[in-house]
Amino acid sequence: MADVPSMEALEALLRRLPGIGPRSAQRICYDLLVRKRNLLPQLATALERAHAAVRFCERCNNLSEAPLCAVCKGLHRDHSLLCIVESPADLRAIEDTGMFSGDYFVLMGHLSPLDGVGPEALHLDRLSERLAEADLQEVIFATNPTLEGEATAQFLADLVPAGITISRIAHGVPVGGELEYVDRGTLGRALHGRRLLDE
Amino acid sequence: MADVPSMEALEALLRRLPGIGPRSAQRICYDLLVRKRNLLPQLATALERAHAAVRFCERCNNLSEAPLCAVCKGLHRDHSLLCIVESPADLRAIEDTGMFSGDYFVLMGHLSPLDGVGPEALHLDRLSERLAEADLQEVIFATNPTLEGEATAQFLADLVPAGITISRIAHGVPVGGELEYVDRGTLGRALHGRRLLDE
Repeated sequence: MADVPSMEALEALLRRLPGIGPRSAQRICYDLLVRKRNLLPQLATALERAHAAVRFCERCNNLSEAPLCAVCKGLHRDHSLLCIVESPADLRAIEDTGMFSGDYFVLMGHLSPLDGVGPEALHLDRLSERLAEADLQEVIFATNPTLEGEATAQFLADLVPAGITISRIAHGVPVGGELEYVDRGTLGRALHGRRLLDE
Repeated sequence: MADVPSMEALEALLRRLPGIGPRSAQRICYDLLVRKRNLLPQLATALERAHAAVRFCERCNNLSEAPLCAVCKGLHRDHSLLCIVESPADLRAIEDTGMFSGDYFVLMGHLSPLDGVGPEALHLDRLSERLAEADLQEVIFATNPTLEGEATAQFLADLVPAGITISRIAHGVPVGGELEYVDRGTLGRALHGRRLLDE
C-alpha cells in the first residue's frame, strides 16, 4: 500500500495497542476506511477527550475526571479496610465483583529491580499517609500473583504500622476450573491454604 | 466507572471495531490511559488524517490518496487481465501474493437480495467501461467463495462481452492444510477441480 501513507501510519499505531497484531490492525483500518468512515472522526474526538479529561485520583491513583475518584468520593465505603492493587484495571476488577466496600490504593506498578523499578516509583509517600489514617484496621494486598507482585506485597507489608492486620487475597483453584488443568504451583497453594468446611 | 464518562465513550466506540469485544476495549482503554498516554493524541491525529486523505480510486475503487491508486498508476501492469474482487482488502490480499500483475476492479460488496443489495450497488456502469477496454482478454472473478460471492460472479459473467475469457479462482484444499480437517464442500470441489500432474 505504498500510496496510502495515512492508512499505513494508522495501522502502525494500532499495532501498539494490546491484543492487536498486524492482521487485526489491517482489518480495523479497512473496516474503518471502507465501511465505517463516520467512526474515524468520532474515535479521534473520543481519544482527545479522554486524553484531556482523564487523570489520576489524588487519593488512590484510580482513573477519574475529578480530583477524587468515584470510590474515594463514595459515601458508604468502609474506611477500616485498605486494598492495595497494582493498577486501576485491577481496582476495577475488584469493584466489579461487588464484594469489597473498603478503600483502595493503586501503586501504579510493582517492584521490579531488573527493570529499574524501585520503591520510589510506587507513591510510597502517599501510601504512608493512607496507612497512618485513624480508621484503618486491615490492609489487604491484592497485587498480582507473580514474583514481582508477591515481592512488592512483602516489601510494603513492612511499612504497615503495628496493630493493623495485614492480609493477602487467597491463591487457589479458580472457581469453575477443573483440577486436572490447574498448574502445580496453584494446586499446591490451594492445598496449603485449605480451609475447614464449616468456616 | 460512573465518573469517567470520556473513558466509557471511548470504550463504546472501540467495541464497534472488528475483533474487539468488551474485554479488549477495556484493556485498550486502560493501556492507553495509564501506560501510553502519548499515544492518545497520536492516534487521534492519525484517524483524522486517514479520514481526510484516504478516498477511492476513480478507476478501480481501491483505497488511495490520489485520484488513481498505486495499482492503476503502475507502469508494468498487464492490461489484458482484469481481476474482480469484493473489497479493497481482497485486492490487497491478492497483491500481497505477488503472483498477479493484471488490473483490478473492486465491486465494494456483493449481490445480496435479502439485504437489499442489488446490482445497482456494484458500480456496474464503471465496470462496463472497464469490460469494454480494447486490451482486455480475460476476466478473473475473485469474489468470496460464499453463496453471495458465487452468485455475484455468475451475474457479472453475463456482462462480459463475447470473445473475452471468463475464469474463477480455484477452490480447493488450502496449501499447508491437512485433508482430515478440510470441510466436505471444499474437498468435493478440490476433487472436481483436479488437474493433471504434468500441467
